[in-house]
Amino acid sequence: MSAPETGIVGRWTSSPGATDIVTGRARYCPDIQLPGMLTGKLLYSPHPRARIRDINVSEAQQMPGVHAVITHADIPGENSYLYASPDQPILAIDEVRFQGDAVAAVAAVDEDTALAALRAIKVDYEVLEGIFDPLEAMQADADQVVTGEENVMLGMTFRSGDVASAMASADVIIENTYRTQWAEHAFLETEGSVARMEEGGGITVWSSCQAPHRDRMQVARALGLPESSVRVITPYIGGAFGGKDEAHVQMHAALLAFTAQRPVKLIRGRRESMLTHVKRHPIMVECTTAADSSGLILAVKARAIGDAGPYTNASHEVMNKFGEFIGGPYKVQNLEVEKIAVRTNNPICGAFRGFGAPQAAFVYECQMDEIARKLGLDPLEIRLRNGVDTGTQLCTGVVVRDGDAMKASLRKAAQVTNWKNRDQMNKRPAPHLRRGWGMATILKGAGMGRGLADHAGVLLEMHRDGSVLLNSAAADMGQGITTVLVQLAAERLGVKVSDVRINRADTDRAPDAGASCASRQAMVSGNAVLLAADDIRKTLLTLAAMKTKVESDRLGLRDGRLLIDGEPTDLTVQLLAERASNWGYPLQAQGRAHLEYPSDAPRVPYRYSSEIFQFCTQVAQVLVDIETGQVSVERLVAVHDAGKMINPGGVYGQIEGGVAQGIGYALSEELVVEKGHTMNPSLENYVIPMALDLPEIEMHVLEFPQDGAGPMGAKGVAEAPIIPTAPAIRNAILDATGKTLHQLPMNAERVLKALQD
Amino acid sequence: MSAPETGIVGRWTSSPGATDIVTGRARYCPDIQLPGMLTGKLLYSPHPRARIRDINVSEAQQMPGVHAVITHADIPGENSYLYASPDQPILAIDEVRFQGDAVAAVAAVDEDTALAALRAIKVDYEVLEGIFDPLEAMQADADQVVTGEENVMLGMTFRSGDVASAMASADVIIENTYRTQWAEHAFLETEGSVARMEEGGGITVWSSCQAPHRDRMQVARALGLPESSVRVITPYIGGAFGGKDEAHVQMHAALLAFTAQRPVKLIRGRRESMLTHVKRHPIMVECTTAADSSGLILAVKARAIGDAGPYTNASHEVMNKFGEFIGGPYKVQNLEVEKIAVRTNNPICGAFRGFGAPQAAFVYECQMDEIARKLGLDPLEIRLRNGVDTGTQLCTGVVVRDGDAMKASLRKAAQVTNWKNRDQMNKRPAPHLRRGWGMATILKGAGMGRGLADHAGVLLEMHRDGSVLLNSAAADMGQGITTVLVQLAAERLGVKVSDVRINRADTDRAPDAGASCASRQAMVSGNAVLLAADDIRKTLLTLAAMKTKVESDRLGLRDGRLLIDGEPTDLTVQLLAERASNWGYPLQAQGRAHLEYPSDAPRVPYRYSSEIFQFCTQVAQVLVDIETGQVSVERLVAVHDAGKMINPGGVYGQIEGGVAQGIGYALSEELVVEKGHTMNPSLENYVIPMALDLPEIEMHVLEFPQDGAGPMGAKGVAEAPIIPTAPAIRNAILDATGKTLHQLPMNAERVLKALQD
Repeated sequence: MSAPETGIVGRWTSSPGATDIVTGRARYCPDIQLPGMLTGKLLYSPHPRARIRDINVSEAQQMPGVHAVITHADIPGENSYLYASPDQPILAIDEVRFQGDAVAAVAAVDEDTALAALRAIKVDYEVLEGIFDPLEAMQADADQVVTGEENVMLGMTFRSGDVASAMASADVIIENTYRTQWAEHAFLETEGSVARMEEGGGITVWSSCQAPHRDRMQVARALGLPESSVRVITPYIGGAFGGKDEAHVQMHAALLAFTAQRPVKLIRGRRESMLTHVKRHPIMVECTTAADSSGLILAVKARAIGDAGPYTNASHEVMNKFGEFIGGPYKVQNLEVEKIAVRTNNPICGAFRGFGAPQAAFVYECQMDEIARKLGLDPLEIRLRNGVDTGTQLCTGVVVRDGDAMKASLRKAAQVTNWKNRDQMNKRPAPHLRRGWGMATILKGAGMGRGLADHAGVLLEMHRDGSVLLNSAAADMGQGITTVLVQLAAERLGVKVSDVRINRADTDRAPDAGASCASRQAMVSGNAVLLAADDIRKTLLTLAAMKTKVESDRLGLRDGRLLIDGEPTDLTVQLLAERASNWGYPLQAQGRAHLEYPSDAPRVPYRYSSEIFQFCTQVAQVLVDIETGQVSVERLVAVHDAGKMINPGGVYGQIEGGVAQGIGYALSEELVVEKGHTMNPSLENYVIPMALDLPEIEMHVLEFPQDGAGPMGAKGVAEAPIIPTAPAIRNAILDATGKTLHQLPMNAERVLKALQD
Repeated sequence: MSAPETGIVGRWTSSPGATDIVTGRARYCPDIQLPGMLTGKLLYSPHPRARIRDINVSEAQQMPGVHAVITHADIPGENSYLYASPDQPILAIDEVRFQGDAVAAVAAVDEDTALAALRAIKVDYEVLEGIFDPLEAMQADADQVVTGEENVMLGMTFRSGDVASAMASADVIIENTYRTQWAEHAFLETEGSVARMEEGGGITVWSSCQAPHRDRMQVARALGLPESSVRVITPYIGGAFGGKDEAHVQMHAALLAFTAQRPVKLIRGRRESMLTHVKRHPIMVECTTAADSSGLILAVKARAIGDAGPYTNASHEVMNKFGEFIGGPYKVQNLEVEKIAVRTNNPICGAFRGFGAPQAAFVYECQMDEIARKLGLDPLEIRLRNGVDTGTQLCTGVVVRDGDAMKASLRKAAQVTNWKNRDQMNKRPAPHLRRGWGMATILKGAGMGRGLADHAGVLLEMHRDGSVLLNSAAADMGQGITTVLVQLAAERLGVKVSDVRINRADTDRAPDAGASCASRQAMVSGNAVLLAADDIRKTLLTLAAMKTKVESDRLGLRDGRLLIDGEPTDLTVQLLAERASNWGYPLQAQGRAHLEYPSDAPRVPYRYSSEIFQFCTQVAQVLVDIETGQVSVERLVAVHDAGKMINPGGVYGQIEGGVAQGIGYALSEELVVEKGHTMNPSLENYVIPMALDLPEIEMHVLEFPQDGAGPMGAKGVAEAPIIPTAPAIRNAILDATGKTLHQLPMNAERVLKALQD
């Protein structure tokens, strides 16, 4: 069947909700109003570690206007986050283990009453000495953060090749210790949920989340209900970045609604959000890289200790991904990486855009420039010399299938920045200023990884007037998956984007699409839409063939019309749809896709390894004030691989946002944690870049549609943009000042200290 | 694949919503509360026929609290009910044609304000002489009720065999004129709808209806929106009986919400409902039946004139079905039936349980007893002598495939009533009382009929805990389709009924299931559920086969467990579901079924003829007060054919309700219409039987599972019960008094008059 391109895929397309979003009509969790709705609030531990001797809620329960006060004892089902974090209680039982542990929850007629009820709850704590240093927590005689569980929740070493021999034969060895910080997602909309009991004893939960079907499971198990009694809907979501992958307050809201038998809205305030929800892992990395005199990397050895906070969450997987990517997009033959995740009483860490890869890239790309510098090589040359190609087998065992973009992105970045001649620019524009250029190139997996379920379903229906309804449970947190899915459906069905309506994710309306994470949805849900659309398309073309007596392989659909041999006819899609409806042909289809790995690929020793890769190169031009240590990014060039862009606007948006987040990660963002207490839980003190802090970001997208595993050759692009930014800036500072920094963020204080050393 | 019966199908099962319904938690349209919701009201014509010179809404529009006042001029899309009733405007334009034509609609902050706004609308009418007598309307020089449209909207004659010759050779000829009345559905919940504009400019409509997907089309076209912008949800529905098959106030509510940009609730009051919505057709039938001396029917000739009211609605189809069934369940070889539907300015008529068949049955079963009486035959014998068998070709051309129940129901009824010895009972228990016995046996199609689209889709999902979500858009108006579908899913998936949750019909959640009409949903949606469940079952058994190493054709599912060779094992459905979820096997399926007609069946000359039949026999024992004419039904025995009962409670409920409705139709229910005005638009004056008015209804259900076209041999049972009740009672009155009645209802006045003649 011919599938002519209608020009919808590849065209800048605004989100189906764009008008509602900019006019304020779009409803986010905080906007939901239900008759009789109560306000929910959580009581958190004031101590990073304490034993709970007693919780007395009787006074709170008797306050007028208070409809529910619950503690761990009131949970009818399982008191656990389950899934990734089975050791994390929904409400603390006999011990609190970090500042974000909730001890009790209340629902009351208004916020003031709810807060008064929180104050009336008496918790008798026995304060315990916390464990805040991962190295201390790793000691054999250290207290267990979670009694009965090892503090070292993950301690695995992956070896490939013979690192010791390679090191022994090296011409140059670079050894450094890197430190990254706790970083905050800083989504515009904090975590929130609304829950309402329904007829029949079921419950509906509105959830600002990335994984509605997983939320459903968690809520069901917390309430002791079958999953079929739980419906999860995502209203509009104001950002997530991995921070809403794991459940947050959904179970609390549901438990309160269940207890009060009234709707409950539970929204975290900004301070509450910053104190309690998951952060990017601070990782300490000792890394040794060996190369020969030509700059060829011979071996990488790394030991990475990630501070997990008290509970499992995504720490295993984040540290696993760190290890998978520590070799970078390079032909590293000998690798040894020790991946350690340690429990402490510090903030809990979990998923955050990049998922271990930003920390790894900071390490390997800093090492790369130090080797180049030592050997007098150009940073571009050493990267081209070591870079992977299509067909390269990585040290993890994976054979790169889509590697052309690696060197292409380097070359494109070099070309647009006139890299070879960069030193012709003024490196000292003022006595106190130094200018420099740095580059970084990375790889990042897209998709869950081999061995993990990675599938999505969608439902698609064309109505008798040719308009289309698309139901997908892929959460759109602002990244634009709904736009992409609508484009794909419109493209394949030959109708306009505006003819397709997509609903917000709803577990009652759409099959599981998995989480919106790991840069996967455009690929997996996108393929599912094409499969469903092809079913309907086939029916339309069958009817068209009956009507026109032209064989269906000569027929196509575009701009609402039937094509014969690519030429538009008078026969409209609407008429075909009406015929189908009148004659009882179904124009309703489900599509289901999963990421497939080639069956002839070699067995890969690295656990859950990615096999689809995002490649990109970024070049930063910075100005360092050597008197204050202040670094400003003057120019940032980002060259990214998208396979095939479905919605260029979305791709460029992801790059722009990722770079902005990367600049913050590089220079200013840091949660300051002292003995388990976050000292700057506010966006006044946790400094994210504002629009005026950003340089113009020059973006270039490379398309290699033959490479992409997604629809029409697309591949995930969501995570890559944040990853190379910090090392590119760091290498630019090195270029400008000759000083090597090994800790993030590279704020004025640290830069000044390095300049003074 | 083995499919052992788990005992769920065939077991009395209460509705999934039973507890909510009896405790008042179930939300019907009037219970819906939305923030900012307005009250909608309609202004109807005070005249059955008038020209509209002017509508002035300016005063109403300026009233405080009034948010929308609309007339025909404000409809952005098509001002038509479309589908079955394209000539019926949503809001009258230049003429009103019956008391139910709406002229304007308002939405205001509360009911008082809305009613005040209605009063403030000035309509300048030129009152016209109405046409209220169908015979007068049929005159060549009669005014056209709808200008440009013939008053005789249907006038077709169907002929089979040679009636004239058969009549000429007959030993006995019975000729009568029958008259039936306007009858009211009298559902507990009047028509209502709630509409709310949504983000993105779409609209959600809550609709007390039988055909949510058709409502969607109608609302979309009225608003000039694509269908994809419209979502229709049925909340709980308090009865319909065909009266909510066609749209009622959904478009008005949607237009008001669209204009006001606020949610609008529009509920008809009882009086309003009775004055405006469709009624059962009053039909005048001249019928001649000829038989030989043995009682064998030689020919039937009938001319039926149905009063349609002003607009098309279902009148074509109702009169067509009348003609299809006028031969009854008998081997009538020679038939001539003229079917006429005539426009008048009387109340509009449309679908009502039985859809023309109750009127036909009243005619043919009265004729049958008069022939028997004339020939001295027993009413049972004459019916057995003429009754169809499996394989009989009806006069319409259809070959009966499932006819065993016809005579079986007669014999069973005779047996349980001790029919042969009925005269041993006291026929004159008091000087003023006469007792008699009457029987009637009928056939009624199930399904839309050959040539009409008759399909349904469902979506089914099993979650990882083995619980199940079922989405069907088959409207449950109280008839219990949701219960049946849940049972079928549970049966096939080997889980408990309580493990399956079914949502109320929602066009955004489920594919089109067509209307809940024509006794079709248990068959069509039921088959769709089995198809979907079999998909999931197959996956579960595949996984079970992998786990147990037993071939899947030896495996089954029951009571939440895997069976091997019919014996339960320790392996649970839940565990299989969890495995499927972990391994990425989809437990999500869509099912789609359509009623198939055998490809080897003969070409059938009768348009849209049914090919699946409901058979039943009812016997009534009545007591006639010869002083007052009052008839009381002492005993009613109903023997019905169900193919296979899925939910016996539902089947018996349908029979009981149908018989009650049939007793009302027989004896008391009648809308008195004088010159287009209904004189008794209230349930005080329109007398439906109360519980105490009913005899004990003895029900017997015959199962012929090899016959049913539905799931596991089920066939539709919803309409048959009302059909034989009136003629059975009429024949009992004849038996008691010797008087032949030919007009419904047989109220005291008419019976007394017959006794006095």
